[in-house]
Amino acid sequence: MKIGILGGGQLGRMLLQAAFNYPVELHVLDPDPQAPCAAATPYFKTGNLQDEAAVYAFGKQVEVLTIEIENVNVAALKRLQAEGVKVYPQPEVIETIQDKRRQKQFFEEHQIPTAPFVLIDYPQELYKHEGFLPAFMKVGKGGYDGRGVLLMRTAKDFVHAFEAPSLLEKAADIEKEISVIVARNEAGEVRAFPPVEMVFDPQLNLVDYLLSPAQITNAQAAEAQAIACRLIEAFQMVGILAVEMFLNRDGSLWVNEVAPRPHNSGHHTIEANYTSQYEQHLRAITGMPLGCPDSRCPAAMVNLLGEAGHQGAVYYRGLKRALARKGVYVHLYGKAETKPGRKMGHVTIIDDNLQSLKASIRYIKEVLKVESRPADSAPA
Amino acid sequence: MKIGILGGGQLGRMLLQAAFNYPVELHVLDPDPQAPCAAATPYFKTGNLQDEAAVYAFGKQVEVLTIEIENVNVAALKRLQAEGVKVYPQPEVIETIQDKRRQKQFFEEHQIPTAPFVLIDYPQELYKHEGFLPAFMKVGKGGYDGRGVLLMRTAKDFVHAFEAPSLLEKAADIEKEISVIVARNEAGEVRAFPPVEMVFDPQLNLVDYLLSPAQITNAQAAEAQAIACRLIEAFQMVGILAVEMFLNRDGSLWVNEVAPRPHNSGHHTIEANYTSQYEQHLRAITGMPLGCPDSRCPAAMVNLLGEAGHQGAVYYRGLKRALARKGVYVHLYGKAETKPGRKMGHVTIIDDNLQSLKASIRYIKEVLKVESRPADSAPA
Repeated sequence: MKIGILGGGQLGRMLLQAAFNYPVELHVLDPDPQAPCAAATPYFKTGNLQDEAAVYAFGKQVEVLTIEIENVNVAALKRLQAEGVKVYPQPEVIETIQDKRRQKQFFEEHQIPTAPFVLIDYPQELYKHEGFLPAFMKVGKGGYDGRGVLLMRTAKDFVHAFEAPSLLEKAADIEKEISVIVARNEAGEVRAFPPVEMVFDPQLNLVDYLLSPAQITNAQAAEAQAIACRLIEAFQMVGILAVEMFLNRDGSLWVNEVAPRPHNSGHHTIEANYTSQYEQHLRAITGMPLGCPDSRCPAAMVNLLGEAGHQGAVYYRGLKRALARKGVYVHLYGKAETKPGRKMGHVTIIDDNLQSLKASIRYIKEVLKVESRPADSAPA
Repeated sequence: MKIGILGGGQLGRMLLQAAFNYPVELHVLDPDPQAPCAAATPYFKTGNLQDEAAVYAFGKQVEVLTIEIENVNVAALKRLQAEGVKVYPQPEVIETIQDKRRQKQFFEEHQIPTAPFVLIDYPQELYKHEGFLPAFMKVGKGGYDGRGVLLMRTAKDFVHAFEAPSLLEKAADIEKEISVIVARNEAGEVRAFPPVEMVFDPQLNLVDYLLSPAQITNAQAAEAQAIACRLIEAFQMVGILAVEMFLNRDGSLWVNEVAPRPHNSGHHTIEANYTSQYEQHLRAITGMPLGCPDSRCPAAMVNLLGEAGHQGAVYYRGLKRALARKGVYVHLYGKAETKPGRKMGHVTIIDDNLQSLKASIRYIKEVLKVESRPADSAPA
């Protein structure tokens, strides 16, 4: 079976890794000839993912087409689907998710709990919604990784407003941020992974690590999984969907954003769950039964980001010390160049004991650093 | 780092899969353009592994050269080693292991317990050793997968004797057959995986499945691991070494044969141990610290062999039923054509409960079959 992936980053690379267990041929399209997938498959092609002709030509040669990034040409996907290529997630789902306004409207139409919001077509409209503050202004299309989002505390902040069609979303009173990855296959089978928790560094106010399973009540976990299941069924989507949620201080759950593909919040499933998110995605899109998503043991995931002040050929300081520790799994994405904040890899840590798990997280964050290579040293 | 692998079969493919976690570039050489690695890396080359020029040219472009099959040209490896390529396992180790006579002599010289044996240069010499029967006659070079071995019950069997230099080895009084995979890195660190057990079907007298950890006493397990550690240290080998042993009815352990590479008896480590044999091999040959080889949970491994009476394009009957079961991991090697007895894949099953583990083994053996594709069916 020939499968195509739009996007050749680390998520595509981990999909390729999972696909080695099956007699499938994965073709990858990415604009960057140095993308993490380029060195990982003989079926890598360069091409613009927003270009209709490029995506169409790539998709015509495969039986199943999937994505590892949402920002792709949907018109090409619709043509391919009409011509018999299985496109999973379906183009309509990608189109809805590409636009945060449509995404929120979809949640509302399907009774998916989410933060109250209003659509904003012109910045001037903001002044009608002062009572809504504090709130986040989110641009409808094109925002990602924190871009396209502004916190509006008071009406004074409106001067920074986006000019593009946006939405204003009431700020949640957040207890925890959690994520549920849910899968649905062609037969309509639906299974949700246990919720995971983004643990914040209270000093830096940044995600410190991801913890699986989330430390929430069983009832909260069951409710979060039920919401994710309802949402993927509402989409009638085939593939996996990452559902990021806020657990509010009043105990309610709000869906924040979704991604119809493997997700950063599911990396740990490779070692810590019966089925990995990558395997589950492959099963879903190739007509196989879904695997058991249950947790095998507690786990943490730490992103490896390029250190501030380091740019150029990458050097992983402390790699040997990290690898020497039991239950530590280092995943480096094969990117040759680092720059501050670039996602260069991640580390999953498994441990049945939560105390020693946390000790290992501290250890890894302390010893393993993504730096640029000192001029006088050999590659590590 | 550029690494070369001689051999592009399933063992190479699983090494590639493990290598995705690191920024290494794995080049593969195999005579078969359809080998399991061909579709799995952009750095696949075809070439004869016994040809000195081909192996030398391939090895010259990498920093570290390893094998996934022993039957390779050692002269080329020695030249490469002399010219600064790191060849792991070292050529001298491969050379010793390629010849069962030298292998047995090596065991003897290093006080590694093994079945008593005599070297046989000409078939006529057998008659001097009638008192040694029952015994196995094993050809020194070129035997593999059961070929090149003959059971000599009485002197009447001598008429079938090999003409080539061989050895006659006393038949062991076997309680169990076990295997220990042991790793050693450049720094001399040595770690052994827990012993696994080959469970035989009493009716068919064939290996039914592999069980990890072996059901033996802790003292026996510790002794088996200690023997494997002593052996890899005697070889001063870098990489992993699979050590197959007989546990005799009198409680003693005899080393049967060894393989200086990833091995069939270590497939289960991918899911069932903290570190897989493939990851461990990569760590050993790239100067990394070794990973923890401990078992995470009990596991079984069932080989998927081509069914008798089936030849041609492969069809995996029962694949969906197998995949639907919790704790079942199907590994298909991507071979297009099946034939009776051909290794087409394996299944690892994990389960904390030994009773339900055995039920799953029975289930998988019953439902999952490697057949040739019926003319009227679509690919599964």
